[in-house]
Amino acid sequence: MSAKDDIVTAAILVIGDEILSGRTKDKNIGYIADHCTAIGIQVKEVRVVPDEEPEIIAAINQMRARYTYVFTTGGIGPTHDDITADCVAKAFGVGIDHHPQVKQLLIDNFNRRGVEVTAARLRMARIPDGAELVENKVSVAPGFSVGNVIVMAGIPSVMQVMLDAVTPRLKTGKKMLSVTIELLRPEGEIAELFGQTQAEFPDVPMGSYPFNREARVFGTQLVLRSTDAERLAAAEARLRQRLREKGIEA
Amino acid sequence: MSAKDDIVTAAILVIGDEILSGRTKDKNIGYIADHCTAIGIQVKEVRVVPDEEPEIIAAINQMRARYTYVFTTGGIGPTHDDITADCVAKAFGVGIDHHPQVKQLLIDNFNRRGVEVTAARLRMARIPDGAELVENKVSVAPGFSVGNVIVMAGIPSVMQVMLDAVTPRLKTGKKMLSVTIELLRPEGEIAELFGQTQAEFPDVPMGSYPFNREARVFGTQLVLRSTDAERLAAAEARLRQRLREKGIEA
Repeated sequence: MSAKDDIVTAAILVIGDEILSGRTKDKNIGYIADHCTAIGIQVKEVRVVPDEEPEIIAAINQMRARYTYVFTTGGIGPTHDDITADCVAKAFGVGIDHHPQVKQLLIDNFNRRGVEVTAARLRMARIPDGAELVENKVSVAPGFSVGNVIVMAGIPSVMQVMLDAVTPRLKTGKKMLSVTIELLRPEGEIAELFGQTQAEFPDVPMGSYPFNREARVFGTQLVLRSTDAERLAAAEARLRQRLREKGIEA
Repeated sequence: MSAKDDIVTAAILVIGDEILSGRTKDKNIGYIADHCTAIGIQVKEVRVVPDEEPEIIAAINQMRARYTYVFTTGGIGPTHDDITADCVAKAFGVGIDHHPQVKQLLIDNFNRRGVEVTAARLRMARIPDGAELVENKVSVAPGFSVGNVIVMAGIPSVMQVMLDAVTPRLKTGKKMLSVTIELLRPEGEIAELFGQTQAEFPDVPMGSYPFNREARVFGTQLVLRSTDAERLAAAEARLRQRLREKGIEA
């Protein structure tokens, strides 16, 4: 495995008019980002697109060509505005039909609950040809993956169990490690030495994040990131030394 | 003004590694989406990209060609990882330098606070040539707009005052109106009649959103959207009639 192979990337594609209108506030992006970081997958891009076939297909095809994985959320329910499965099938140029195993899962579940089996309800059994299922421990109807695209529900509780279910099948890379140095100083005070330290360690991305407490800018968090623990430690030591030289406690 | 001119669209571009790593949870997308919906601008796409010049420039150029406005958040502070202003200048092919008015604003503010004027601190005065400033009532250093791209801070409290400051300059279109019908029924029960109603009113987008209360799927919100109040009312009446015919109270 080359160094390059150690990096596993992902994109998140959120599908839904309700996010773009502001009606629903997304809770999945941050959750998936945290999860990916924890298991050694680097999220490199996020998009939110409307419930429109050309937009969804274009985003899937652009992102699946660029990243190791694409995680989609939303648009896999039983109503007419749920078009994600059809869009994934079209993006991959494969057919889509009722998946026998999923259809049986749903029928068994409907029968157990005394719910009528209708064409609309069975829409959730429509799965692209060749897809692998992703178990849904919350509400039965599964997600699925086709190639490197993993299709999950939009409801956070359902998305989260699907993400857990698919995780053992994911290739993961070196974990991104990070250190955070919190200063009760404004960014402007450390910008120069921080930039000098970044120049010395171009392979360790360094970010500066001012933070608010009690509604005013109060301080700065400096975050250094690397998949290489030794480089990270060396960069941190250098930065702390520069801070000390400026008389800034960290 | 043709019907087409009545529609004003926007995209949101969130710039920052900290969102992609999960370290910071975005609070700006939902806020900008709500604001745009309220003033008659339709958000059609959102992207989150890392602090990498080629990614930022490509996203700006793709989005500014497609939508009436592009709102960016993040990357306009004083540290080396703040590269948004330079990327916007490159995307538009214009120069960038210290803006005399902004420089003076910052110097006056530093002097008032007894803060040393340094090159790093004056980085926040770097504004692309020909940009219009966007006032920052919270922390002085302004945002700006170049063409149809509006560049704002990432800190939510600062972004929000910048959005307020730029709003009077924005062209707005017909407001998207919506009605929500809440049912204590699962989606599967109304999917068929809901799809039929959508087919009768293809110009009134209709979405169905199951909701959780107490951690289980409990009901469904049906949302109908249109900029035309009469069509919206007609679609709503038809949907309510279909629900009544099925014995579903709404």
